Amino acid sequence: MEIPERRRGGRRPTAEVRDAALSAAAELLFDCGIEQVTHDRVATRAGVSKTTVYKWWPTAGALAAEAYLLRSEPLLELPDSGDFAEDLLIQMQRFVALVTEPPASRAIRGILAAAQTDDTAREAFLQGYVIPRRDLTERAFRRAQHGGQVRANADFSAFIDQLWGACYYRLLVEPSAVTAEYGEALVRQSLTGIAQ
Amino acid sequence: MEIPERRRGGRRPTAEVRDAALSAAAELLFDCGIEQVTHDRVATRAGVSKTTVYKWWPTAGALAAEAYLLRSEPLLELPDSGDFAEDLLIQMQRFVALVTEPPASRAIRGILAAAQTDDTAREAFLQGYVIPRRDLTERAFRRAQHGGQVRANADFSAFIDQLWGACYYRLLVEPSAVTAEYGEALVRQSLTGIAQ
Repeated sequence: MEIPERRRGGRRPTAEVRDAALSAAAELLFDCGIEQVTHDRVATRAGVSKTTVYKWWPTAGALAAEAYLLRSEPLLELPDSGDFAEDLLIQMQRFVALVTEPPASRAIRGILAAAQTDDTAREAFLQGYVIPRRDLTERAFRRAQHGGQVRANADFSAFIDQLWGACYYRLLVEPSAVTAEYGEALVRQSLTGIAQ
Repeated sequence: MEIPERRRGGRRPTAEVRDAALSAAAELLFDCGIEQVTHDRVATRAGVSKTTVYKWWPTAGALAAEAYLLRSEPLLELPDSGDFAEDLLIQMQRFVALVTEPPASRAIRGILAAAQTDDTAREAFLQGYVIPRRDLTERAFRRAQHGGQVRANADFSAFIDQLWGACYYRLLVEPSAVTAEYGEALVRQSLTGIAQ
């Protein structure tokens, strides 16, 4: 019989340590703001060594990006009903609900601000959040394209920015304008355009 | 004969003082970054009194927003050829050229970052830049709508964010992806949508 990993020298399994660190980072990010997400505080709160935290996330930006992904991912999944427009409407409703909640709004606005003065933070957010989310969405987009719901020559990069990018931008300049109706208008118009 | 205003007690005309202060603020913003746009530095550089600078722009954010508008406005005018799509393509080309130049990129990214930690800076940017630019664009949009080039039920707020908002967002997370081709895709897709 294998001795459970935990028992060997009392060390916790890697995955458990990783989860504990990320949960601690997410709590700090959502409850206190990005300036509180430091290796020191995460290590203390998660009860893991600072060296371990540094090993997995060399920068505080990388830690914040993955913590944001961890917390938001389950809420932002794109449904797959076979009706792409409907799936987008549902997802956008959830997205707006998430990013307008004060803790998530503080988290994402803090991350985007930090990314403008610290290039490693920007790169960490791009690699640790933007690209993973983009890849998930691209699968749904391509399915809709193969299924004939999306034009063959549609531009995926423009499309995602015209939905979620537009919403993030408005959140940065006029958070009160980010409403369910606004989200719905983004979805409908990204699908149909405005031309007569 | 009227004595020119300048001669009376050696004071410069109000408009000239205002222009000097704004030009100084724009130089600081574009050349050095938003953290250099302070009432003190602007007053010294423009040769005007600090009290005057404070009177017109109560916060550094207000000063930065109007300075950004002053510098970018002449470059961002929407042409009026009668062909809305064509006008947007031309404007978007100029917009991408502007925001990808290092000084303007630093200026706008700095403003958007500052707006996330300082609510007066956000409000100043909204009132001093976002809303004035939105109003200018809305006139062109309504003309196109009346002329039958834009659908009667098109949503203007969603539309502007799907063009310029999308672009700003991408500039914040992945500046290298903001290219002329990307800008063109945004325009075409905001007009026609992606649905089959």
